[in-house]
Amino acid sequence: MRQEVYKAIARKVSDEPFARMMGLKLISIDAGYALVEMNVTPEMANIQGTSHGGAIFSLIDEAFEVASNSHGTTAVALNMNVTYVAPPLIGTCLRAEASEVSRTSRTAQYSIIVKDGNNSLIATCQALVYRKKDRLPFLQDQDGGS
Amino acid sequence: MRQEVYKAIARKVSDEPFARMMGLKLISIDAGYALVEMNVTPEMANIQGTSHGGAIFSLIDEAFEVASNSHGTTAVALNMNVTYVAPPLIGTCLRAEASEVSRTSRTAQYSIIVKDGNNSLIATCQALVYRKKDRLPFLQDQDGGS
Amino acid sequence: MRQEVYKAIARKVSDEPFARMMGLKLISIDAGYALVEMNVTPEMANIQGTSHGGAIFSLIDEAFEVASNSHGTTAVALNMNVTYVAPPLIGTCLRAEASEVSRTSRTAQYSIIVKDGNNSLIATCQALVYRKKDRLPFLQDQDGGS
Amino acid sequence: MRQEVYKAIARKVSDEPFARMMGLKLISIDAGYALVEMNVTPEMANIQGTSHGGAIFSLIDEAFEVASNSHGTTAVALNMNVTYVAPPLIGTCLRAEASEVSRTSRTAQYSIIVKDGNNSLIATCQALVYRKKDRLPFLQDQDGGS
Repeated sequence: MRQEVYKAIARKVSDEPFARMMGLKLISIDAGYALVEMNVTPEMANIQGTSHGGAIFSLIDEAFEVASNSHGTTAVALNMNVTYVAPPLIGTCLRAEASEVSRTSRTAQYSIIVKDGNNSLIATCQALVYRKKDRLPFLQDQDGGS
Repeated sequence: MRQEVYKAIARKVSDEPFARMMGLKLISIDAGYALVEMNVTPEMANIQGTSHGGAIFSLIDEAFEVASNSHGTTAVALNMNVTYVAPPLIGTCLRAEASEVSRTSRTAQYSIIVKDGNNSLIATCQALVYRKKDRLPFLQDQDGGS
Repeated sequence: MRQEVYKAIARKVSDEPFARMMGLKLISIDAGYALVEMNVTPEMANIQGTSHGGAIFSLIDEAFEVASNSHGTTAVALNMNVTYVAPPLIGTCLRAEASEVSRTSRTAQYSIIVKDGNNSLIATCQALVYRKKDRLPFLQDQDGGS
Repeated sequence: MRQEVYKAIARKVSDEPFARMMGLKLISIDAGYALVEMNVTPEMANIQGTSHGGAIFSLIDEAFEVASNSHGTTAVALNMNVTYVAPPLIGTCLRAEASEVSRTSRTAQYSIIVKDGNNSLIATCQALVYRKKDRLPFLQDQDGGS
């Protein structure tokens, strides 16, 4: 059952327009957990020639989105607190790992860690969702409407 | 003098690879202030069919980057705390307005407010930079190396 | 009706054990708004001889608590993001002003600003609550159990 | 040498006015690390009868202060982001554990975790300091002024 949810989310992510635009790849998903990868391309440079914060954050947000929706019900992002440790070089491959820190019936909290190709810490994030009771809409189709 | 700095930053932003990729447009710049605009395109959709958090954040980050570099010296982002109020619809035009809340010789703090085409609040952000002593690199060329 | 809620909260704050311990005084309350005052006493000094962050935060939290409960239903703090601007001197009188930034049926967001006796900015805070449907317990008694 | 710094900080904390007021006890200190304990007393109750957020934050801040000053140079708090997981009961003994996540010559980042007497998670915090070059003032006396 869980595996069905994970597969459906993975399919949805591989079709996600923004994930395609940014080259975000879902590597692993589990209960309250996600690992997502992104290459820092020259198109992601900011005015100082390093990776734009928006690109790094997009990677963080994707891992957060997958981990917080992994229970099969819709999670809505409330708050994200990002601390930048080092600017990643253009060309490196970044990985964001999201892990669940706590969860109640209505909210849940995640820690997201970003590292570069040398396993150096790039950014950390503490993030919060509101949890709806509704099953993820794209799972309902699968279930025959349940 | 200040106007020269603003013009140089505006030129740099219009050439910025990531700003082009996301369609970020700098509307206004002043001391500690920036207004940036972005259309939410279908390419920015997430798995739930609303705007991806990474797209909204990219807009926030651009306004923050311009406002914090507006004094002509290099500002390095340390921390950003984003609270999402409502998900913007695909097709709307978002505006992010960054204003300086406080500034010392080594750090500065900004408030960034995102609104949609109906002037409804979409997200708020509290953000912090470390301020280097160095003049922005692309201004040094202009100055003849000063 | 609203005035009754404000009076009941004000009474409750004046009896609150922690408010007494810290010398927190509620100056003003309105819908989504609170102004609270605290003298920085010598007992609040940290190891560096300036005001302990915990004392400043206690003042922020009190203003946040009052503003977020001002609608008469129970608000539960989810997240608080504090940025320190300047350390207040021992002996000064601090004021924290909490204002509602946004509110839905289930969450609400507040901005809290702390200033000292010279009206200098000391700290800012962005804070989030989850809103229960329940009326504040101490209002129910008053209402004859409604 | 390090042990001397730890001992001096521990002495300073045991004399700290605010630590005495709140009953904060430093249990352990190491490089970038601190463990601090506090009993939630009836004096720490808020208007809802659970522990005031200011009391929990005071404990977090003490662990953060000790961990960030443990390298012997002065650290100044810039930003703290707290997420509340569960309200602690009056009478429980809380423990805050601060660990260094990253550190450069000018900034450092800490994660602080608060648990109650049953080892249940109460709150988490992501916190940032600016690092001065100056040695902690109370160490200078010891060193004979170096």
